[in-house]
Amino acid sequence: MLIEGLEPLPAGTLDTLRTAGTASVTTELFKLGIRHSFMTGPVPLDPSYVMIGEAVTLRYVPSREDIDTNENLGKPTNPQRYTIERMAPGEVLVIDSRGDVRAGSLGEILAARMRALGAAGFVTDGAVRDAAGIRATGLPGFARAAHASANITIHHAADFNAVIGCGGIMVRPGDVIFGDSDGVVVIPRALAAEVAKAAAAREELEAFIKRKVEGGAPLLGTYPPGEQTLREFEAQRKS
Amino acid sequence: MLIEGLEPLPAGTLDTLRTAGTASVTTELFKLGIRHSFMTGPVPLDPSYVMIGEAVTLRYVPSREDIDTNENLGKPTNPQRYTIERMAPGEVLVIDSRGDVRAGSLGEILAARMRALGAAGFVTDGAVRDAAGIRATGLPGFARAAHASANITIHHAADFNAVIGCGGIMVRPGDVIFGDSDGVVVIPRALAAEVAKAAAAREELEAFIKRKVEGGAPLLGTYPPGEQTLREFEAQRKS
Amino acid sequence: MLIEGLEPLPAGTLDTLRTAGTASVTTELFKLGIRHSFMTGPVPLDPSYVMIGEAVTLRYVPSREDIDTNENLGKPTNPQRYTIERMAPGEVLVIDSRGDVRAGSLGEILAARMRALGAAGFVTDGAVRDAAGIRATGLPGFARAAHASANITIHHAADFNAVIGCGGIMVRPGDVIFGDSDGVVVIPRALAAEVAKAAAAREELEAFIKRKVEGGAPLLGTYPPGEQTLREFEAQRKS
Amino acid sequence: MLIEGLEPLPAGTLDTLRTAGTASVTTELFKLGIRHSFMTGPVPLDPSYVMIGEAVTLRYVPSREDIDTNENLGKPTNPQRYTIERMAPGEVLVIDSRGDVRAGSLGEILAARMRALGAAGFVTDGAVRDAAGIRATGLPGFARAAHASANITIHHAADFNAVIGCGGIMVRPGDVIFGDSDGVVVIPRALAAEVAKAAAAREELEAFIKRKVEGGAPLLGTYPPGEQTLREFEAQRKS
Amino acid sequence: MLIEGLEPLPAGTLDTLRTAGTASVTTELFKLGIRHSFMTGPVPLDPSYVMIGEAVTLRYVPSREDIDTNENLGKPTNPQRYTIERMAPGEVLVIDSRGDVRAGSLGEILAARMRALGAAGFVTDGAVRDAAGIRATGLPGFARAAHASANITIHHAADFNAVIGCGGIMVRPGDVIFGDSDGVVVIPRALAAEVAKAAAAREELEAFIKRKVEGGAPLLGTYPPGEQTLREFEAQRKS
Amino acid sequence: MLIEGLEPLPAGTLDTLRTAGTASVTTELFKLGIRHSFMTGPVPLDPSYVMIGEAVTLRYVPSREDIDTNENLGKPTNPQRYTIERMAPGEVLVIDSRGDVRAGSLGEILAARMRALGAAGFVTDGAVRDAAGIRATGLPGFARAAHASANITIHHAADFNAVIGCGGIMVRPGDVIFGDSDGVVVIPRALAAEVAKAAAAREELEAFIKRKVEGGAPLLGTYPPGEQTLREFEAQRKS
Repeated sequence: MLIEGLEPLPAGTLDTLRTAGTASVTTELFKLGIRHSFMTGPVPLDPSYVMIGEAVTLRYVPSREDIDTNENLGKPTNPQRYTIERMAPGEVLVIDSRGDVRAGSLGEILAARMRALGAAGFVTDGAVRDAAGIRATGLPGFARAAHASANITIHHAADFNAVIGCGGIMVRPGDVIFGDSDGVVVIPRALAAEVAKAAAAREELEAFIKRKVEGGAPLLGTYPPGEQTLREFEAQRKS
Repeated sequence: MLIEGLEPLPAGTLDTLRTAGTASVTTELFKLGIRHSFMTGPVPLDPSYVMIGEAVTLRYVPSREDIDTNENLGKPTNPQRYTIERMAPGEVLVIDSRGDVRAGSLGEILAARMRALGAAGFVTDGAVRDAAGIRATGLPGFARAAHASANITIHHAADFNAVIGCGGIMVRPGDVIFGDSDGVVVIPRALAAEVAKAAAAREELEAFIKRKVEGGAPLLGTYPPGEQTLREFEAQRKS
Repeated sequence: MLIEGLEPLPAGTLDTLRTAGTASVTTELFKLGIRHSFMTGPVPLDPSYVMIGEAVTLRYVPSREDIDTNENLGKPTNPQRYTIERMAPGEVLVIDSRGDVRAGSLGEILAARMRALGAAGFVTDGAVRDAAGIRATGLPGFARAAHASANITIHHAADFNAVIGCGGIMVRPGDVIFGDSDGVVVIPRALAAEVAKAAAAREELEAFIKRKVEGGAPLLGTYPPGEQTLREFEAQRKS
Repeated sequence: MLIEGLEPLPAGTLDTLRTAGTASVTTELFKLGIRHSFMTGPVPLDPSYVMIGEAVTLRYVPSREDIDTNENLGKPTNPQRYTIERMAPGEVLVIDSRGDVRAGSLGEILAARMRALGAAGFVTDGAVRDAAGIRATGLPGFARAAHASANITIHHAADFNAVIGCGGIMVRPGDVIFGDSDGVVVIPRALAAEVAKAAAAREELEAFIKRKVEGGAPLLGTYPPGEQTLREFEAQRKS
Repeated sequence: MLIEGLEPLPAGTLDTLRTAGTASVTTELFKLGIRHSFMTGPVPLDPSYVMIGEAVTLRYVPSREDIDTNENLGKPTNPQRYTIERMAPGEVLVIDSRGDVRAGSLGEILAARMRALGAAGFVTDGAVRDAAGIRATGLPGFARAAHASANITIHHAADFNAVIGCGGIMVRPGDVIFGDSDGVVVIPRALAAEVAKAAAAREELEAFIKRKVEGGAPLLGTYPPGEQTLREFEAQRKS
Repeated sequence: MLIEGLEPLPAGTLDTLRTAGTASVTTELFKLGIRHSFMTGPVPLDPSYVMIGEAVTLRYVPSREDIDTNENLGKPTNPQRYTIERMAPGEVLVIDSRGDVRAGSLGEILAARMRALGAAGFVTDGAVRDAAGIRATGLPGFARAAHASANITIHHAADFNAVIGCGGIMVRPGDVIFGDSDGVVVIPRALAAEVAKAAAAREELEAFIKRKVEGGAPLLGTYPPGEQTLREFEAQRKS
């Protein structure tokens, strides 16, 4: 695992999250005072993706013609290759591409390598190269666009596992990354267990509310739920 | 119906529109001097949607942390809930989200309520929350993006049935809103019957022209149609 | 053919390209010093499109109300109609729409005419009108968005076969235009044969690398390929 | 005064603010949980302006060719003219122009009228027309740009004294508007007296800190001020 | 003169314009149905500039590394150098830079050459290089920004005296270009005499209105002027 | 000095640069293959600034409400305070603010501290707070805008002396930063001496060319200089 010195997440955290959706998670983070936790920009390469894992980060800065050459890509110290090569099962690669979509952040071969290593997926606030090829690997990926240019056209891989921004949200190594058809939410690691539990409970409540609304219930008293609705929910839950 | 004091639309107006497409409608509005009538930004959540109805409007302004709390969402005076709760069959909710996609304008439960009330659909120039859940309700919806954050993260529902802008186009309550796979056109209510009729006629003519072009006819004299083409069209129409 | 005085491309150039992808082509152009060759913005109307052909160009400037009337559209001197009418099999129409998506650059009838003439496709850095209708013609098309407004709402067709910019890339008449699911690359005509050959070879090598990576090979020494990997590739190629 | 039913501000609130700057005010609002209070975009037409007053609001939506004609400008019900004509001494006109700078929000004659009525100034998140003429009236004004086109080119005055957004910040009629060389901050009316007092105190402290830093004091312990620095400040303040 | 085959402008047209401002000109063009005539983006390098002349145009497209080298800049066929070298007294160079400010469109030496040739000025919707040096030549210039990079970094001079767009407005060679402290308006050549006369008259009327407003007149009946105001104006004008 | 392990720059490098301008520097870097070296966005707070020094870098990422509190600003480990406190004479602080101007990157007290420590100036691709106060310190500063909100509103200081991007250009600690009225160029440290010398020579040549052009010389043969012009320049230089 690339991220050292982190306490493991409480058992079941990621599985609990899986029963919730990103909307419930953002609501629970909002209640804890984190108003902005959901990336603006990245969309799933395939809307059926659900991606959950722990963040390893990669940071890109603008490239420079004399440094970012094809020759330098093969060096073992290249942070992009170094980082991907060390990814462990359950990790999600989060790339700070400065929101620039004028080149791919990565392409199908790197995606295939992540897949082989058991990585949980990746997200970039830039573009991907050969989106169809990446999709074919089966690795969940989130990006703003597709662009065939190689990353060194505009990107220089500066370092890994620094605190970064991606899609306007701070990402620290070890944060929990959760992506679904809406996009990607970043859950601060220290809050992950609490948020997962609350979001799963909320999901259950919202499903109950939705059924009521579909059955003709008015919004007032139902959404947000009033006392009567909450009582009904508890009653049904017990049965 | 939320909009009071409006004369009903001439019978058949909406059904006539249904036989045309948004491209024909913008062309007919252009002829009447309305150059810009089609929203820039919103796309259908599902490309198979056709949405036709009368506009009720909802206006969002930037939220403020001390006003836009979860607690205030449940108040019966909240304009978002108030408006949606009163929607009638055939109405389309048009939301002025200032083009800001950093949070959802609404989510699946509100969509389910609109569906239950018989609303014709909605359009926002912001994002939607839980796009997949909204799609599952079957309610046609148009938005610029998906974003899981709750609307109060960045939006404050200010009022309803004001004149608003959405996707760069003025929308007045009662205007006819027509969405298809290209996006959404706004038809001023007073022009709706005239435009519907002209657009339906145009649609028929364009289908005729398209068949000619597919059969090898050159553009000159065919598109736009010259006298000969128009005569052929009339002849075929009669038969 | 609209473009006069050009030497024909070396035989097989376009067919060779067809065996490569746009990612390989941008890599080979990068090696020749052309860092930016891939358009930013245009996406395929259908991700299954592969479009290869020689560029004819059309240039739009902002329209003016007294010039850009429906009446003027039918004149034989209108550059848009003039250009499309003269397209030959294997040509790709490239439209400089200044990146403005507030109206369609063209619609289904013009697409049908191009299809009837055997054109290879089109690309605009603006929008298209009636995207579904264009898709139905079977003509490959690339655009940034859909918008139902007629082109004269914001565009004036100024001239054809000038050097233009599209999606941030210079396009000269006769350049080779190659689009796939990622988008569109522009290959300078004089480099097309060399690039096609190199990209096809690269495609073969990358497929080999990908299989190795899928089989568990580490990135170092494999991608970019070291001597050992290249030897294996040559060995396999011969067999 | 255009805004009815408001309690007067505590005596001296605006004068106290005048001894502070917009930076101190945003800091004090931040402490109260209002993270975003300062408009992004508008700059003073002249950097020497200090503008303090109570907000009256004007809301623009996209114009429509058949409604927004020169003829309609002269009607007494035109919200733009109606609002400006009723401005009272000490009021600031805040215009929601949707951030669109493709036409002026107002010009020199309307500025002259506001000046004659004793208004404290105006701010728009759009452009102004005849910026030099406005400057010549002496009325403080803040805008994003200059543009000579008349407002009806793109704007329709929809209503006045609604809650609006301007420069990304919610503005309610009666809020205190404070502009200086950095730009414009919006102070919620209910917080104005408290914020004014705290900001004025902060200004004094920051001036003290700045003198210490200019004299060579290190940041640590000085800014933010530690106990020793605060004691020194109190001591000096008493003397 | 670079532009051939044009009828000279009616005598006195440019001098009459000089007594008006760009705001009056846009108003008169609006009355003639030209809603958008004023460029969005370019600002004067010095706010005291008044620039009036006839347009010669220069068109930039994205540059390409193998074509846009320092060596090619010196060739007599380079459209940028060719065009500037042939400028005549009273001409204004209008450059279509696609709104891209990541390099200068021109710099001080080319401005000095235009000055020596008697040119009336220039406008670009890109940036200028060495803005201080250009200002020192005394040649009026309008641009969106300053940027020290040479034009070939991102621009390729494609041709001259084509119809272009600049700041979102169509410009045809021979159009009258009028810049003042607000920015730049484009007057179609065929309308220039009519517009100049109307704008000069309007300027006089607006000055009269402004004096009335400064003297305390209400907007209603004064601006736009009612019958009584117009009678007073006529009376005063005669005296 | 914050940057360790760097060879000192060759004596006189910075003084030589001072005789050139940023335009000459970008031209010489272009000749060495560095096409993009000049930041897009930052402008001098005062156009008379000339700023030359060696880069120390500070990196901001999006802030998070629970981390970026006023309390944490005072900690000695805060990278912003830590970095500024250690600045040495001749150093320039370069801040990667992700181009986000919705809060100040720094304000007048930090500028005063940098001034007291002998720093050469600062540049941010975000905004500054209390621009007038910063100007009053006399420290040269470059930014995209002014904004009164405190940096923690949107920024979290992540680390210092990492490789960063600023205004679209890669900046490495120790690079030479040169700002003048056009803006800021980044000179890779290893190229600084060579570029300084060449740019100074170029500046002399361009001054000679400018005088010739002002005296009526045509562009062809003069700019770029032909053999004859170069001979004249050499002759004059010797005398």
